[in-house]
Amino acid sequence: MDNLVEEAGLREGISEVIATTQPLSGTPNAAPVGILSRGSEYRVRLYRGSKTLSNVRETMRLAANVTRDPMFFVRTLFGNLSPGDFSLFHGFPVLKEANSWVLFRCRLVYEGTDSLLFLLSPLAVAIIRARIYAINRGLNAVIEAAILASRYNIMKSNREREQMMRKMGDYAEIVERCGGRREKEAIRLLIDELQKRANQNRMVSKNLSMLL
Amino acid sequence: MDNLVEEAGLREGISEVIATTQPLSGTPNAAPVGILSRGSEYRVRLYRGSKTLSNVRETMRLAANVTRDPMFFVRTLFGNLSPGDFSLFHGFPVLKEANSWVLFRCRLVYEGTDSLLFLLSPLAVAIIRARIYAINRGLNAVIEAAILASRYNIMKSNREREQMMRKMGDYAEIVERCGGRREKEAIRLLIDELQKRANQNRMVSKNLSMLL
Repeated sequence: MDNLVEEAGLREGISEVIATTQPLSGTPNAAPVGILSRGSEYRVRLYRGSKTLSNVRETMRLAANVTRDPMFFVRTLFGNLSPGDFSLFHGFPVLKEANSWVLFRCRLVYEGTDSLLFLLSPLAVAIIRARIYAINRGLNAVIEAAILASRYNIMKSNREREQMMRKMGDYAEIVERCGGRREKEAIRLLIDELQKRANQNRMVSKNLSMLL
Repeated sequence: MDNLVEEAGLREGISEVIATTQPLSGTPNAAPVGILSRGSEYRVRLYRGSKTLSNVRETMRLAANVTRDPMFFVRTLFGNLSPGDFSLFHGFPVLKEANSWVLFRCRLVYEGTDSLLFLLSPLAVAIIRARIYAINRGLNAVIEAAILASRYNIMKSNREREQMMRKMGDYAEIVERCGGRREKEAIRLLIDELQKRANQNRMVSKNLSMLL
């Protein structure tokens, strides 16, 4: 089974994938997570307050979907995917467009302040399509930008947020130069969403300052 | 043919590959280059003073080798590969361990001050093995670090070089956390080689200051 998991693309180190989960009753959820593989052990850290964590606590199941489409990493950062993006494997949601997926059973091994650590055992593997991709710095820049953006909500000061937006500009420049169509779409969506949030913040702080 | 080139992994945007070339008579050479694909046009920019450029001017041939092994990107940055790393396709060198390669005919379209631009037409494509890889931030960090390191020689001030070494430290941290064995080997080799060069520089400037 471990060889199959590797063949599905979850190799040594941390694999950035789209986790699909579902509650005992309710709609499927998709979110970006990192799967840590060391030796033949797989682990995932899930953050408190996340839908992925509450679903995993209910079902102890998580599917790691391997994709190189940057739009999935940006779309799942700001909300859920559409019902049409999922397909079902024996009733469990996986990503229809994934190149491969691994369905894991999860076992809680550590409860931290902000996050919980789960040990993962593979239950099923699907290898859907293996394609060759040369390294593209545009894709890498979208992933780094998405990880940076995921920290937006925990940034306290406006200065931190402005610094972040400057770094976003650097990533966007790499994407425009090196990326393909999907990478360009993804970075534009990411920056649009962040700007929406920044405007909302400004409105909130303006309204607050009017109250003072 | 264009579909085959895409199947070989050279997709829209800039593909980071290992270029193999050879002079009319002499040994094969390998170096990292970016292949720009737009529409069904492929182009490459080659820098003056590089072995790749002088070889291409002699033979008008270049093979783009697609690999995700970060060691190739670091090893070719500081020197050539070993004869055993190459295999021959009708006498032209390609990378033995490549997942795929495309042999191109090159046509000079623009001569700039620092670089020359070539239009590429595919002559042959080899699809060797298609594997699924989840996105790994460690691999991305090695590639970014290698691109940064390639500018080491054109950095004028020690301040610039120190800034670069600090950035290298950030990349190394990502690699240690997210990368696999090959990524860790590659970033260590990269940092070792840079430190060697930094020490040589210090010795040169010390020797120079003794002369003053």
